[in-house]
Amino acid sequence: MARTKGAGNSAVDRIQDLILAEGMVPGDPMPTETALCERLEISRSSVREAMRTLASLDIVEVRHGHGTFVGQLSLSPLVNGLLFRARLDDGNDLRALREVVELRIAIDLSVAEQLVEIYRGTVNSELEDLVEEMRRLAKNGQPFPEADAAFHTALFSRLPNGLLRQLAQAFWEIHTTAVPLLDIVQSEDILVTVDAHQAMLTALEAGDADAYRDAVHEHYRPLGRTLDAAGRAAATAVTG
Amino acid sequence: MARTKGAGNSAVDRIQDLILAEGMVPGDPMPTETALCERLEISRSSVREAMRTLASLDIVEVRHGHGTFVGQLSLSPLVNGLLFRARLDDGNDLRALREVVELRIAIDLSVAEQLVEIYRGTVNSELEDLVEEMRRLAKNGQPFPEADAAFHTALFSRLPNGLLRQLAQAFWEIHTTAVPLLDIVQSEDILVTVDAHQAMLTALEAGDADAYRDAVHEHYRPLGRTLDAAGRAAATAVTG
Repeated sequence: MARTKGAGNSAVDRIQDLILAEGMVPGDPMPTETALCERLEISRSSVREAMRTLASLDIVEVRHGHGTFVGQLSLSPLVNGLLFRARLDDGNDLRALREVVELRIAIDLSVAEQLVEIYRGTVNSELEDLVEEMRRLAKNGQPFPEADAAFHTALFSRLPNGLLRQLAQAFWEIHTTAVPLLDIVQSEDILVTVDAHQAMLTALEAGDADAYRDAVHEHYRPLGRTLDAAGRAAATAVTG
Repeated sequence: MARTKGAGNSAVDRIQDLILAEGMVPGDPMPTETALCERLEISRSSVREAMRTLASLDIVEVRHGHGTFVGQLSLSPLVNGLLFRARLDDGNDLRALREVVELRIAIDLSVAEQLVEIYRGTVNSELEDLVEEMRRLAKNGQPFPEADAAFHTALFSRLPNGLLRQLAQAFWEIHTTAVPLLDIVQSEDILVTVDAHQAMLTALEAGDADAYRDAVHEHYRPLGRTLDAAGRAAATAVTG
């Protein structure tokens, strides 16, 4: 196996190389700061700085009072960066948030055939219950982020591509976090979104990829209207 | 506009809030370390640590000898994390790399209709030249990452969704960087890949979305064979 040479590389690279060389996996305890200084022949301040960078990338994870471990390599750095980008874009045309939503749609559509294969002819009471929970909350005028997250996570849970699942989750998180941060008022047709969740599930259980794709578009339509209205309000605030 | 309160937040959050409050954009110079300490009432070491974290997330950018600027908010943290994940996975079944390639395929397919709208009836000599460059290099047994990158970037350059363009670029980079790092020998049918680039372009110019989708699958087929062979070799190394 090719190995990147340690010499000349940054402390970050050298710690990453060490994790690889030792065959460590997410959750394994990292060597102590002192051990890293000695093994990699770098200063304590370099080790400390590198570990902070690696922590911000979720390549290592600091559990306070318990030590440092190999991280979960999640997409949390992506979420942070894109959330910041969405907020930076605020007052403008909400383009960053629109782009995230477009990517959610693209991901949901890209797995239509795979999901049909998985769900055709099945009954999914867990997913049905989540739709009912959303409906109950929506009727009381309440938001339903937990049920919504649980629905999408459960729906995708049997897809084999873990990166796609994580990416879908990351974009869900950016979208759901950004909407309140940007003070966007959810449109009143939120019950349409609840019905669309039901329609997605019904279509998949019936093995109908086209109906699933229609339901995906329906699912994002109220949000599209919300973003359009917020975009118009921002434009009025600028020109008015 | 809602504003996150400064008090109680980390130095990272407070610096991000400052960038937002000041309406700064990528490329703007950041206040000096001293100015940040004073304005945010935090210690110099906290500012320094926060700026390193922000730099690793590409929210700020340190240009040595020139100072610190608001970053480009690129997907480079995603690339770093996923490359590391691909290497961590080495010797296993190359699953991390397969997942990245599957996502590249999903992205390329998701924009079929949009690309057809853009390219139907057009002539694209720049893209033709890049295909010829790939062919020349492939015939000499040489890799062609620059021409390949230039082709995919140019092909997507007129898509309106900047995040999708960046994501496609990030996955291209992970894929192209990971293949040599993992010591995977490219299969000999690399000319098939060159032809597939030509076929993608021809299909789009002809306004034929189905032919474009076929060419996308063809484009990734040699790589699929390469990954399968490397996966079998790894399995043999373990069991043999």
